[in-house]
Amino acid sequence: MSTQPFFSYKKLLDRIKDLIILQNVQGILQWDMETMMPPRAVKQRSQQLALLSRIEHKMSTSLEIGRLIKRIKANSNYETLDLYQKRNLYLIEKNYEEQKSLPEKLIAEKTKQQVLTVNSWKKAKLRKDFSLLKPDLEKLVEIHKKIAEILAKVKRVKTPYNALIDIYEPKISTQTVNRIFSQLQKGLEALLKKIQNSSEYRPNQKNISLVATEKQKKISQLLTRTLGYDTFSSNSGGRIDETEHPFTAGYFDDIRITTHYYPNDYLSSIFSILHETGHAICEQNINQEFKYQPIGSIISSGIHESQSRLYENIIGRSKEFWTYLFPKLKQIVSPQLENLSLNQFLLFINHVKPSKIRIEADEVTYNMHILIRYQIEAALFENKIEVNDLPEIWNQKYADILGLKIKNDAEGLMQDSHWANGYYGYFPSYTIGNIYCGQILKAIKKSVINYKNKIAFGELADINQWLKEKVHSHGSLYDSNDLIKKISGENITTQPYLHYLEEKYRELYNI
Amino acid sequence: MSTQPFFSYKKLLDRIKDLIILQNVQGILQWDMETMMPPRAVKQRSQQLALLSRIEHKMSTSLEIGRLIKRIKANSNYETLDLYQKRNLYLIEKNYEEQKSLPEKLIAEKTKQQVLTVNSWKKAKLRKDFSLLKPDLEKLVEIHKKIAEILAKVKRVKTPYNALIDIYEPKISTQTVNRIFSQLQKGLEALLKKIQNSSEYRPNQKNISLVATEKQKKISQLLTRTLGYDTFSSNSGGRIDETEHPFTAGYFDDIRITTHYYPNDYLSSIFSILHETGHAICEQNINQEFKYQPIGSIISSGIHESQSRLYENIIGRSKEFWTYLFPKLKQIVSPQLENLSLNQFLLFINHVKPSKIRIEADEVTYNMHILIRYQIEAALFENKIEVNDLPEIWNQKYADILGLKIKNDAEGLMQDSHWANGYYGYFPSYTIGNIYCGQILKAIKKSVINYKNKIAFGELADINQWLKEKVHSHGSLYDSNDLIKKISGENITTQPYLHYLEEKYRELYNI
Repeated sequence: MSTQPFFSYKKLLDRIKDLIILQNVQGILQWDMETMMPPRAVKQRSQQLALLSRIEHKMSTSLEIGRLIKRIKANSNYETLDLYQKRNLYLIEKNYEEQKSLPEKLIAEKTKQQVLTVNSWKKAKLRKDFSLLKPDLEKLVEIHKKIAEILAKVKRVKTPYNALIDIYEPKISTQTVNRIFSQLQKGLEALLKKIQNSSEYRPNQKNISLVATEKQKKISQLLTRTLGYDTFSSNSGGRIDETEHPFTAGYFDDIRITTHYYPNDYLSSIFSILHETGHAICEQNINQEFKYQPIGSIISSGIHESQSRLYENIIGRSKEFWTYLFPKLKQIVSPQLENLSLNQFLLFINHVKPSKIRIEADEVTYNMHILIRYQIEAALFENKIEVNDLPEIWNQKYADILGLKIKNDAEGLMQDSHWANGYYGYFPSYTIGNIYCGQILKAIKKSVINYKNKIAFGELADINQWLKEKVHSHGSLYDSNDLIKKISGENITTQPYLHYLEEKYRELYNI
Repeated sequence: MSTQPFFSYKKLLDRIKDLIILQNVQGILQWDMETMMPPRAVKQRSQQLALLSRIEHKMSTSLEIGRLIKRIKANSNYETLDLYQKRNLYLIEKNYEEQKSLPEKLIAEKTKQQVLTVNSWKKAKLRKDFSLLKPDLEKLVEIHKKIAEILAKVKRVKTPYNALIDIYEPKISTQTVNRIFSQLQKGLEALLKKIQNSSEYRPNQKNISLVATEKQKKISQLLTRTLGYDTFSSNSGGRIDETEHPFTAGYFDDIRITTHYYPNDYLSSIFSILHETGHAICEQNINQEFKYQPIGSIISSGIHESQSRLYENIIGRSKEFWTYLFPKLKQIVSPQLENLSLNQFLLFINHVKPSKIRIEADEVTYNMHILIRYQIEAALFENKIEVNDLPEIWNQKYADILGLKIKNDAEGLMQDSHWANGYYGYFPSYTIGNIYCGQILKAIKKSVINYKNKIAFGELADINQWLKEKVHSHGSLYDSNDLIKKISGENITTQPYLHYLEEKYRELYNI
C-alpha cells in the first residue's frame, strides 16, 4: 500500500475544499459589508449571505459527504492514513454531525437576522438608544438558543451555553472557564490594589496629543512593517482599512485588517493595529500545505487571541519594543511628542485604570470586562435573564466590579459588535487567549535567546519564526489544550500570565 | 382563474432569484478584485470565482428548472400569465437552453482563465510587453471559440462571432453591424475632414493644468451629485473608487463606479465619472418590482452604453451643462483655470483629433476605434488571424484608419481590458450605443420641454425622469431594437447620431 491517500479520502477532501472556498467568499462579503458597502445595500447583502450559507449548509450535510466518511472509516486501508489525514477526517466528521443536526431553515434565518442586527446595532450605538437594537437582538438570541440546544446534544456538553463556548474553544468546559476566571479575578484585584496604592501611581495619566489621520496611517505602516505583516509590496497579501470596530478577516493569501483613526487618541489605532497584526501574522503563518483542508485554520479563538494579545501587549507595550520604535514615532508625531520621554510614554501606554471600554482597557483590568460579559452571556443562555434586562445588569456589574457609572448604552452594552453579530460564547476566548499568552511567553523565554534584545533592535524574525513553528503553522492539527501542553508542558493555568503582569508592573511602578 | 401566477411559475422564479443573487456575489468579488484585493490573492480569487460559476452553472441547468419550464408551458393556465411573466419565462428558457449547451468544465475553465489573463494583462501593460500576456490570451480565446461555436447553434445565428455579439446585443446580426459601421465611417470621415479644414480648428489644443487627486475627487462628487447619483448620504446606494480602467458594477441597491485620477489630466476623470454615472443611474432606475427577475436587468450593452455616453457626451460635453458647472469647476481648480473662458473650455473638451487611446477619444473619432476592434475580433473568431498577429494588425489598422503610429502595445492593443476579461463581441455595443443615443436624443427633444435650459440650470430631474420612464425602468422587458422603436418610432439608424454630431460641430467650429 502506498502512502498516497486512497480515492474516497481524496474525493472527500475535494468536497471540503469547495466548502472552504465558499466560506472564504462569505468572508469577503462580510468584510465588504463592514468596510465598503453603500448603506442602502444592507438587505441585499443579507440575502446574498443567506443564500451562500444555505448552499454551504447543503454542501456540508450532503449524503455524499456522509457516505464518504463511512466508506473511509470502513476501508481496510484506513490505518495507512497519516496523522494529518486522520485529523482532517476527525474534523470533517465532527463538523458534519453538527451541521447535519441544524435545520437548513434555522441557519438561513440566523445569517439573515445577523446582518439585520448588526445594522440595527450600528444605528442604535450612534443614537445611544438600545431600543433600536432590542427587537433584532431578541430575535437573534432566540435563534442562537435553538442552535445552542441542538449543539449541546451533538457535542455532548452539559449546557447550551457550553456548546456555544465550544464553537470557539473546542473541548473547554464551563467548569474550567469558571475556575480560570475566579483565579484570575483574585490575582488581578490584588495587583490592581497594589498598583493604585503605589506612590508612583498617578490616577490621571493621559497623553492628549492631536494626531491627524494621515500621520496615524503612517504609524500603522511603520508598525505592520516592523512586525512583519506586508500590506504594500507588489506581492502583498494584506491591507488596512477603517472600521469603527477593528477586525481581521481573510484566508491564506488575502488577510485584511481594519482599524479606526481618532485624531484625539492616536494610541487607540496603534494598539488595534498591533492586535490585528497579531491575528494576521498568525493566519499567514499556517502551513501552506494545509490550505483548503480542515487542519488549515487556527484551532480556536483562544489561540488566535493569544497571538493578537501577544503582539499587542507582551511585545507591543514592552520597553524593548518602544526602545526601537519611539524615536521613529516621535519623527512622525512631530512636534507633539517632542518633550515626552520614553519612560513617560511607557507609563502612558501601560497606565492602569478601570475604564468603560473593553478595547481600550489596560492589561490588568481587561479581563474584568470579559468576566462581566461572560457572566451576562451565561445568565442569558441559561434563561435567568432576558435581552430586555441587559442594560440594567450591564451597568450594575460595571458598578460592582469596576466601580464605574455607565452613562448610556453606547458606552455600555452596545460598545462591542459581538452580540449583534451572533458571537455568543466568544468573549471568554479573549481571557483564555491571555492565559495561553502567559504560558507561551514562558516558553519563549526558555527557547528564544536574547529575545528582549532582539525586540529592542526591531528584529522580530526569530520570535515570529518560533511562533510560526510552535503555534501558527499547526493550524487545527491539535486541540488548543493539547497544543498549549506541547508548547508549555502544562495544562491551561493562570499562573504564568499573572506572573508576567506582576513582573511588568513591579518594574513600572516600583511595587 | 386569479391573476396570481400559478405555483410552478412562482417556484421557478424562486430558483431564478437564487441564481441572480449568486451572480451578484460574483459581481462583488470581481469588483473587489479590481479595487481592493491584495496582489498575492489572484489565484485564490480565481478559485472562488470558478467555484461560484460552477455552482451557478449547475443551478441554472438543473433538471428542476427544465421541468418547471415545461410544466408551465403545458399548463392550461399559461395564458393567464401577464406580459411581464411571459417575458420572464422567455428569458429563463433562453438562458436555460444556452447554459445547458455549455459543458460545466468549459465554464469553470473560462472563469479561471479569465482571472489569470486579467492578471497577466496588468503586468504586460505595465511593462509594455505583449509576450507576457500572449500565452494566457491564447488560452482564453481558444476557450471562447469553443463557447462561440456551441452558442451559435443554440442561438441559431450564422457565425460563432455573431453568437458572441448576441450575448451583449441580443437579436442583432453581423450584417446590421456591418451596415451601421460602413454608414457611420463614411459620415464621420466626411465630418472629420470638414472640422480639420475649418479655419477655426487648432490641431494642438490641450489644457495642461495640474490638478491634485484630492481636488479631482471633489470634482467627482460635484458631478455625481449634479447628475443625481448619490454616493454620500446615509441612504446612499453607490460609491466611487479608483481603478486604472473605469467601470460600473453592482445590482439595484449597491451600484459602484470607478475612475482614475491623473494629476496631469483632470479631464480624464471628469469624463469617466460622467460615463460611469450614466451606467449607474441606468441601473438604479430599473423598476424596483423587477428585482431578482430576469426582466430586472438592462437588456443589452448597447442600451447601457447609450445611457453612459448620453450622460458623458450629449449632456456632459454640452455648452448648457458647463454653463452651469464651469464656475463651480473653476472654484475647485483654482487658480489654474482662472484665465480660461467657458468657450475655450468647450473647445478643449470637444477637441477633435485622431488619438491612440479609445477612452480618451473625441466623439467624432471614437467609433473608428471601435471599428478597428470589431474588424480584428471578427477576423480572430473567423480564424483568419491568430492572437500572435494582434500587435501587427492593430498597429497597421491604426496607421490606415486613424493615421497614427503606435509605439508600443501598452498604448496599442493592450490599452483595454476587454479581451483579457473575455468580453469578445462587446466592443460593437459602444457604437450601437452611440447610435441609439442619437435616436433617443431626437425623442428627448420632442418630449422634454426646454431640456437645454434645464441643463443650463443644473436641473437634470426632468431628463432623468424621462429616461427612467422610457429606457431604464424597462430592464429587459423588450429587446433593444423593439425598445428603440418604441422610443423613436424607427429601427436602428445612424442618421440622428450623425445629425447630432454635425449640428454640434457646426456650432463649435463654424463649419
